[in-house]
This record gives sequence, structure tokens and C-alpha cells, in this order.
Amino acid sequence: MNKNINLQVPVGVRDVLPMETTAIRQLEQKLTDFFYSWGYQELMTPTFEFAETFKAGSPAGSDDVLFKFIDRQGRVLALRPEMTAPIARLVVTSLRREPLPLRLCYRANVFRYEEPHAGRQREFHQAGVELIGADGVAADVEIIALAVETLIKVGLKDFRLGLGQVAVTKGVLNDLELTPEDLAKIKEALAKKDLVLLERLSEEYKLTGIRRKQLELLSRLHGGAEALREAQECFSGTGAAKPLADLEQVWQALVAYGLEQWLFIDLGILRDFDYYTGVVFEGYVSGLGAPVCGGGRYNDLLAQFGYPCPATGFAVGLERLLLALKGSLSKKQDKGYLVAGSDVAAVLKKAQEIRQSESVVVFDNQSKTREEAAGQAEKRGLNLIWLE
Amino acid sequence: MNKNINLQVPVGVRDVLPMETTAIRQLEQKLTDFFYSWGYQELMTPTFEFAETFKAGSPAGSDDVLFKFIDRQGRVLALRPEMTAPIARLVVTSLRREPLPLRLCYRANVFRYEEPHAGRQREFHQAGVELIGADGVAADVEIIALAVETLIKVGLKDFRLGLGQVAVTKGVLNDLELTPEDLAKIKEALAKKDLVLLERLSEEYKLTGIRRKQLELLSRLHGGAEALREAQECFSGTGAAKPLADLEQVWQALVAYGLEQWLFIDLGILRDFDYYTGVVFEGYVSGLGAPVCGGGRYNDLLAQFGYPCPATGFAVGLERLLLALKGSLSKKQDKGYLVAGSDVAAVLKKAQEIRQSESVVVFDNQSKTREEAAGQAEKRGLNLIWLE
Repeated sequence: MNKNINLQVPVGVRDVLPMETTAIRQLEQKLTDFFYSWGYQELMTPTFEFAETFKAGSPAGSDDVLFKFIDRQGRVLALRPEMTAPIARLVVTSLRREPLPLRLCYRANVFRYEEPHAGRQREFHQAGVELIGADGVAADVEIIALAVETLIKVGLKDFRLGLGQVAVTKGVLNDLELTPEDLAKIKEALAKKDLVLLERLSEEYKLTGIRRKQLELLSRLHGGAEALREAQECFSGTGAAKPLADLEQVWQALVAYGLEQWLFIDLGILRDFDYYTGVVFEGYVSGLGAPVCGGGRYNDLLAQFGYPCPATGFAVGLERLLLALKGSLSKKQDKGYLVAGSDVAAVLKKAQEIRQSESVVVFDNQSKTREEAAGQAEKRGLNLIWLE
Repeated sequence: MNKNINLQVPVGVRDVLPMETTAIRQLEQKLTDFFYSWGYQELMTPTFEFAETFKAGSPAGSDDVLFKFIDRQGRVLALRPEMTAPIARLVVTSLRREPLPLRLCYRANVFRYEEPHAGRQREFHQAGVELIGADGVAADVEIIALAVETLIKVGLKDFRLGLGQVAVTKGVLNDLELTPEDLAKIKEALAKKDLVLLERLSEEYKLTGIRRKQLELLSRLHGGAEALREAQECFSGTGAAKPLADLEQVWQALVAYGLEQWLFIDLGILRDFDYYTGVVFEGYVSGLGAPVCGGGRYNDLLAQFGYPCPATGFAVGLERLLLALKGSLSKKQDKGYLVAGSDVAAVLKKAQEIRQSESVVVFDNQSKTREEAAGQAEKRGLNLIWLE
């Protein structure tokens, strides 16, 4: 007899009830207002595009995380897994004549076909910035300073930003000359900082000499200026010297600006997108199993759309940020009213009048008596105004 | 040689550049703030769900407008075409214990596989409200008053809301006893107010007597209390008498509340979703070929999810609203600054300092000389602050 429509939603997506929705919307607004105050202008791209567009922006390893589908003309579309590649495409098609650098920002829901885990479903929300057409230390400094101050701005207290340099990290990994499968295992061990596993893999893959030493260094280095110095000694005279010198300059400017307490160096940071080319970073919060924000320099991405142009940026995961802020978010404490009575127009007028000064005024369209209205008001924690 | 990624986006979706994005975001915020002041709480549902969930909410006629796709388990999913059906599902699964009536609102992008037309692509933005668990005249009055005041609130000046009653309109159409195909032609003529076509179809389908008279009345009636009176005479003693009396009460309360100048009666309004059961309405703006908002009573929808419960609501189309507001939107006139100089940390500090009081302060991460910086500032219409 049950002919009702199925009440379930697909695995990995969910409803967001009023309290959490309000918190997410407030975060989105705060973040974009703050980005705007740094000169970043908001834009929007389509929720789905040709899957090809996202190729450049797909998480490292494969495009299996894409939510793909076929349109009625047989073309392969996909829900966006992130916003950097679509914004690169947009810049090339629509903003090529604007003076560089471009400062752009967004708030968007994005989609990844992954196993749902803490603070991340298959659909989740991001806010982020892209600084396009600016290379060099000062641009890296701008983006990292903006990331730190963004987290401070929204009220996060206990966080640290790890700074890495994929130009070094990728170089070391390439030098290992491993098969893609073996390399993937090394990367995973590195990302997890699993030193025991890394040593076992080094034995198994017969890594020796300088290659092994450099890999160990990447996995172990963690700290401030002294960690950088150790890396510079180890990589002195190699192709990694220049990228490390850049990172040091970025570090020094950020320290001079007064952000040292929020920062550390971590050359093991790889980020989960292949498009990064230089200084990268991730924001960590104690107790959260995944970064609350991340980004970095991606100087080759726009070239894939036919417009070679340096760029850097970052994104904040709003559900993760919300988890990290849990407890410290202030609830709206509006004093509300329920206005009721027998004359619909008179009650509406009274409600409108009070609404000018108080933020929430509910028009009671149901109650026939004062007692009923009092019950409605009580259930909702509202003050009753009854018009005879 | 061109190995670049395709720069196109699929037909019917588009990028939204900064000026329009800012306008849409401001509208979303204004609308949800206003809904909140009436006691409506915002929530979110997934961007895609099982296609079945949207069946109840699909535009009249077919579910061909759904953007469907198959998941990796072979189940049929779809991008949401509207928010009323998902919110009905959400209420049944998550808010069944909350005191009725529930006041809920949303801002959402929705998707319809239709030919793109003025003010509406295949992905577009809506904001709306649902008043769930409230039947009767006063609840209809609340929703219509809220719709009118919402449009006034966002600055729309030249609009009218047409009020209809699908309990009457659907009754007349059913009484015609036509095939679904013939009925669809009649509906289309009615929706377009094409009286010539309607007369031709009436001849062709051999409609005579009271049935023809009632159909003509639906197509022709347009106005205030006098239009309602004429309808009541024509339908006196029929099943349409009660729904018309309800509509009259709604009309009178709205007139008493002072909204008459924004309203008219139009019994030809059918709305494009089958779930409507009672008083319905659409908002029109001169020069816009489609309603800027629409809604009404849908007392049978929640029952399809196993929870019989009366409800009413409406949605505003943001792209259409933006078209209607064109020219009257105030642009942000912030006085911005570009801060530049040779010492990165010093320039960042200066920028931070000014940002406390001015809303936009751009950190110039590129210019090496005062002249370069002056050029950057001029291109962007910003005041230059140069630190030696």
C-alpha cells in the first residue's frame, strides 16, 4: 500500500537544517566581505561544465572523483569538483582585457565522488580567492597573509598554516625514478607523515644515498627558519636552491609582517591537485583530521587554457571551518514576537509596525483565541501580542 | 597544434561576472534577511537527489525538464528543478516533530532542461519561502502579503501580483472532458491569454453552453472585486463557489491591509507545476516576458511523501528580478586604495591599517616604482599610497 515517494537522499549528500544553514551563510558573507576588502571581486561559474574543463583541476592521480554525466547530445559533463580551473577558463574567455593582476573570489558548492568523511560530504561548500597574473614573492606573501587573516577574521583561534614548496617536493619525488604506483605509495606516506612506512618503502624500493636523504628530510622537516636552513644546506647547488630561497623570502616577509605565530615550514606538503608549481600551504586546526584551507601557486594552469599566466590562490572548506569553530559561533539572540488576533489585516499591520524595530515578527495565521496564540508563542520562544 | 582545453561551457549555463554576481548576492541576502524578519528560517537541500523526489515538483506535463543522470550504482539522480518538493521531503524526514506551522526559506540554484530565454538559463537562482502546516485564508494572506512586500523591499516599483484560484481553473478545464493533448492546447492559449486561439479551439473541440461560457470567463476576467463578483455569479451553486469565496476573503483582507494597488484577480493563472490546489499568484513586471515570482497553495504535495499537511509558498527568480531592477540598483561607491612600496611587510601593515576604516585596500604586489604603482592605481580607479 505504500505508494509514497522514497524519502531518502543519495549517499554523500544531505539536508542542512536552519541553525547550520545560518552559520554557513554567515561564514560565506563574512569571508566574501573580507576578500572584498582586500580588493577581490566575487564571480560565479556554472555548477556543471564539460568534464574536460575540470581535468586540469582534478585531484592528483585520477579524475575518478568527478561526478560525470552525459548530456542529451552525448557530451560528457561533470559537476565542478573545485573552482580554480573554472575560474582560469573564465579569465581566459571573459577577463583577458582587464589589467593584471586580477583579484577574484567565490563562494560555491563543489562535488567530489569520494567516501564521505569528517566535515566533508560529496557536496560541500568552499569560499576562496584567486590572484591571477602576479608572480613572485610579494604575491605569495599577499595570498598567505590573506589566508591567515581570513581565519583570524572568522574567529578561529587555534590554527597553524604549514608552508611548503612543491617545486622542491615534486623534484625530489621525480628524482626517485619510481613507477607511478610506487610513487603514489610514497606520496601517501609523506602526506600522512608516516615515517615508519616511508622507511619501509625506501628499503623496498632500494632508495639510497642523496635521494633517500632528501626524501627523509621532506618527511621530517617541520618548524621555522631553522628548518628552512637545514633544507637549504641539503639542497645547496641543486635545482631546489632557488625555490627554497623564494620560500625563505616569503617566510621572512610574513614574519616581518607579524604572522610568525600562525606559520611553520613543512616541505612534505603536496596538496591534492597536480596543478601546483611553487609555494603551497595548508591550514590545520587541532582535532580536525583534514586541512581547513589550502592553496598555493599554480603557474601552469592558465596555459592549459591557452593563456600562460602566473597565479596563486586558496580555498576554505566551510563545513570544516564550521566544525573547527564549533562552540565559538554566536547564536542570533533576537527577541521575537508573535502577533495574533481575529482581524487579519489589523494583525498584519501591527506585525509590520513592530518589524520596523525588532528583527523577527511572526504573523499568527492560525490561532482563533488568545490561549491558542499564547501556546504558539510559547512553543516558539516568542513574545505574544494579542489584538482583540 | 592546439592542445588547449576547450574553452566553451555547455549550452544554457554561463559565467556571472563580478558586477552581476555582487547584485545577485546582495539580492539573496536582502531577501533572506526579509524572510527571516517574518519568522522564516533558511535551510539547504542537496543540489541533486533521486529523480523520483522531484516527480511531485516537476513542471506540469512531463519530467523532461529534469537534468537526469545515472549514479555508479545505476540509480537515476537529477539536479533539482525547484525547491518545494525537496523541502517537503526534508520536512517529512527531519522536521516532523516541530510545532506547525513551519516557516522555511531558501536561496538556491536550480536547473531546468529548457530552451534558454530572457532572464532564464538552464541554471538559475531562486529565493523563496514555504509556510507548511497552515491552511485557510489567513495563511494565504500571509504568503501573498509577504510576496508583495518582498518585491517592494528590494526596490521594485512597477509590478503587479495576479491572484488566481486553481481549484476553479482546474475544475473548469476538467469539465471540458478533452484528451490530454487537446487540453494542453487550451491551457497554452489560456496562459498566453490568446483569446482568438481559444475561440478557434472552442469551435474545433465543439465546446458549447456553460462549459464554453466558463472557459471564456477564465480567459477574460481580469481586475478587482468586480471581476470576482462576475465569477461568483457565473459559478454560483457549483463546486467552484467555495474556492471563489475563499479567494474573495483573501482579496478583502489584502485590500484592508492596504495592498490593493499591487494586486489584481486573474482566474486564468495556472502556474507551471501540477501540485497547486488553491489560491495561486504570479508577479509581473512591465517589459519582462515571464513572472518575476510565483507561488500558491499546494495542499497535496506533502501527502505524496506520506505526511498529509496543507502548505503554501512562493519563489522569486533572481535573474528575472535583476532584469526588472536594472538601472535602479545602486552600485557600491567605495573609495578604494592601492598601497605600494618596496618593503612588503611595511606595505602590508599600511594596507591593514587603512582597511580598518576604508572598505577596499589593494596590496600592490607587483610595482617596483612609484610610477608603476600610479599606473596600477589609475587603471583600477583607486587612490595610491606609496611607501618609500
